[in-house]
Amino acid sequence: MAERIANASFASKVMSASDAAALVPNGAVIGFSGFTGSGYPKEFPPALAQRMRVARDAGEDFRISAYTGASTAPELDGALAETGGVQLRSPYQSDPSMRKAINAGTTYYSDVHLSFMAGQVAAGFFPKPDFAVIEVSAITADGELVPSSSVGNNRTWLELADKVILEVNSWQSEDLRGMHDIYYPIGALPPNRVPVPITSAGDRIGQATLKVDPAKVVAVIKTSDPDRNTPFKPIDDDSRAIANYLLDFLHYQVKSGLIPKNLLPLQSGVGNIPNAVLDGLLHSDLENLSSYTEVIQDGMIDLIDAGKLTVASATAFSLSPDYAHKMNENAAFYRKHIILRPQDISNNGEVIRRLGVISSNGMIEADMYGNVNSTHVMGTRMMNGIGGSGDFTRSAFISCFVSPSTAKGGKISAIVPMVSHVDHTEHDVHVIITEQGLADLRGLAPRQRAKVIIEKCVHPDYREQLKDYYERACATSTFQQTPHILSEALSWHERFNETGSMLQA
Amino acid sequence: MAERIANASFASKVMSASDAAALVPNGAVIGFSGFTGSGYPKEFPPALAQRMRVARDAGEDFRISAYTGASTAPELDGALAETGGVQLRSPYQSDPSMRKAINAGTTYYSDVHLSFMAGQVAAGFFPKPDFAVIEVSAITADGELVPSSSVGNNRTWLELADKVILEVNSWQSEDLRGMHDIYYPIGALPPNRVPVPITSAGDRIGQATLKVDPAKVVAVIKTSDPDRNTPFKPIDDDSRAIANYLLDFLHYQVKSGLIPKNLLPLQSGVGNIPNAVLDGLLHSDLENLSSYTEVIQDGMIDLIDAGKLTVASATAFSLSPDYAHKMNENAAFYRKHIILRPQDISNNGEVIRRLGVISSNGMIEADMYGNVNSTHVMGTRMMNGIGGSGDFTRSAFISCFVSPSTAKGGKISAIVPMVSHVDHTEHDVHVIITEQGLADLRGLAPRQRAKVIIEKCVHPDYREQLKDYYERACATSTFQQTPHILSEALSWHERFNETGSMLQA
Repeated sequence: MAERIANASFASKVMSASDAAALVPNGAVIGFSGFTGSGYPKEFPPALAQRMRVARDAGEDFRISAYTGASTAPELDGALAETGGVQLRSPYQSDPSMRKAINAGTTYYSDVHLSFMAGQVAAGFFPKPDFAVIEVSAITADGELVPSSSVGNNRTWLELADKVILEVNSWQSEDLRGMHDIYYPIGALPPNRVPVPITSAGDRIGQATLKVDPAKVVAVIKTSDPDRNTPFKPIDDDSRAIANYLLDFLHYQVKSGLIPKNLLPLQSGVGNIPNAVLDGLLHSDLENLSSYTEVIQDGMIDLIDAGKLTVASATAFSLSPDYAHKMNENAAFYRKHIILRPQDISNNGEVIRRLGVISSNGMIEADMYGNVNSTHVMGTRMMNGIGGSGDFTRSAFISCFVSPSTAKGGKISAIVPMVSHVDHTEHDVHVIITEQGLADLRGLAPRQRAKVIIEKCVHPDYREQLKDYYERACATSTFQQTPHILSEALSWHERFNETGSMLQA
Repeated sequence: MAERIANASFASKVMSASDAAALVPNGAVIGFSGFTGSGYPKEFPPALAQRMRVARDAGEDFRISAYTGASTAPELDGALAETGGVQLRSPYQSDPSMRKAINAGTTYYSDVHLSFMAGQVAAGFFPKPDFAVIEVSAITADGELVPSSSVGNNRTWLELADKVILEVNSWQSEDLRGMHDIYYPIGALPPNRVPVPITSAGDRIGQATLKVDPAKVVAVIKTSDPDRNTPFKPIDDDSRAIANYLLDFLHYQVKSGLIPKNLLPLQSGVGNIPNAVLDGLLHSDLENLSSYTEVIQDGMIDLIDAGKLTVASATAFSLSPDYAHKMNENAAFYRKHIILRPQDISNNGEVIRRLGVISSNGMIEADMYGNVNSTHVMGTRMMNGIGGSGDFTRSAFISCFVSPSTAKGGKISAIVPMVSHVDHTEHDVHVIITEQGLADLRGLAPRQRAKVIIEKCVHPDYREQLKDYYERACATSTFQQTPHILSEALSWHERFNETGSMLQA
């Protein structure tokens, strides 16, 4: 095995995580690596949390602000949140402790489209990071950084931070080198921006390594800890049904001549429904597929193994432990078919619209007019964040949202009269799919959409209840573009808060 | 004066508007030219309306579907709507009769981002147009079309329609020739799309004329009617105050080094507030300004005359009668500084994000968390449509929304607890300005935004009322990311519907 730290100057900065954490003062703004549980620093955040806890227990103020790529893991979001000292978190999280701190109001959470975060920090929307804390798989002899299992916002944190702390993770395969494609011109602020020269999902437009100013590197930490790799659940009936509706829809688009035989590049959120879709693709006769997405999950590996997926572009892995092992054993093969890019490229609307990506994302709820809530349970409780769903939905050739039609054992309907929070507007949502059916909303006016959604997507337990609301809204509303009864529009959510169920007695 | 119809084959198809209207059958889908009251056909739509009225009065079914660029004029939207026979309207309108038909529920209105309409029709989201009815300023000897005072979706309607009806308008200046820039590759559906090669607002990337297959042209109509050119009102105090807040903000961004001395390309909606902003720019010491926007209005002409605005890119004029006259007299000069593009280029998110456009659009209402309603009064009544506000807002470097803090003599607050319809989400709205002040929301979490909006933007008559709601929401909400009292969230709108005022008794 080659030396992971091949540059003597960097090697001279190796220290313990707690020594590195001691460099961080109260009030620091930190840009961490990490995206969907991949490529986040493993040693530094718990050491920093320990330092914060000691200070805070002693009555000192010790707070930090934390930017990442997206969600991380218990070692990062969990450990920091549990100190109670995270002042600001952005742009995405999914950790139970962090979510708790956000919903308790102790942590401010700015929920930003993932492709915009780097540019907004560069443009001064947020304080610039004092520190970049970045996991890499190796440091080259000439001092460049080989990324690990995610790229996220690493390029930008390394550029903007005053000081850099690197974690070199020997658990990550050395053969990841060459899988990444780091494009630098995008970082330029206007008026100096240029087109992103991607015209096909597999285009490589940058370099394989990240640059860093060696003078900024204040610590190098060694680790061999694995990523947070969570097993997928077996595919359940609802996920299978939703996947089948989506696949039938795609087949029909091909048959209608609207999209090519090998489809268009696919994007999908992470989870069991996307995995069912990928499984469905695996067992279809489709070939030469491509993916322009955020995250590589197990099903894509299967599709690559089967020779059906030619190329997958993303910014991170989100693999089960078995598949992470497979990746580590066979990265030299997979890097021919996988490209990991900075998230402002993987999720860039310019490229998504040009390629004609077909997007598919989960949701918390949709309303009968096609507005989608991706973030707030009952309008007030932050779940995870909008993530990349807005980046893809707005620019997609066809944008789909998927969800089981009910949650909490039937106590919550995923289709409501009016969503309690809007993350994707009626102007952007093309297709809604539940295990009940698929509503194709393209080109429709609001009342046309309502009829299709009620007919196709609503669970039978809620269908009459929603139809009743819709019909009374039409009958009583003076204005018929988007009929509503304002005093009842959010009543399903109120009922759930009061009675524990959206179902009418 | 040269012959406006320089091609013999086209000249041979000249006929009356009523003869042309007779070619259109019941059920036809028609793609009209026209954007913000400019460049719409003047003779054909009233003739078609007459034909529809006769048929419908005789008990026959005669309905059509109408696509345009954006809003048109009484001769088009007004005349057609008054027949009661418009089945579907898209993507934008602002005509009182059309609005009435939409809100009465007799016309379906599909409210689409202006930059997406052409692509969505090409992609089969909507029925393809049977007819394109397009105003031009001239037809060249080789059968190409010189556009008139708007480009809109003309390129796409000409491409997609089976039959083409042209109106040649001799009121329009012949010197408009050379002002337009028609880019063709954008029309390609994926996977054949390429980057839009604009890196500066003044870049010309296409040709000066529109192409049409001569075999599809079934009628040519002559007209000399002027565009619907509406005088602007004198600048009022509220508009002046809002403009000053925006200009101070821009100056501060320059001073902070965030944007260049000549700003970044500006976009603004049409109306009195934008006109006040333009007037403020005229009297500032700013120079070498540029604009990447939808519509050219009077104030931009003044800025060009003063040598302060180097170039303005748009898709249409929206001028007062005096300024339209000036344009017609001096188009040979103005075409050095003005570029009119298809609306999928003028409003293209790829270009808007690359150039770093600073956008500024009107709104109906915003809520204390920064969500914006641009379309629905009290959640149900369609005003005009989202227009280009979503195209610009999502991709802008800094997105601003402007509105007086109250409407209807103080009976309506433009800042409410929860907007009754969402067109722009909290993720996309950077700055909100009323005559009370400017709320800079960049980088803030929801509760931070609420504090700034309540402090800076709300009218004093409503400030305590909103502060009270917010504080009670924070005090009672179990979850603190976005505190709300669901049973009261829309109560201001309900109160207005019931009592005629949002003010609490």
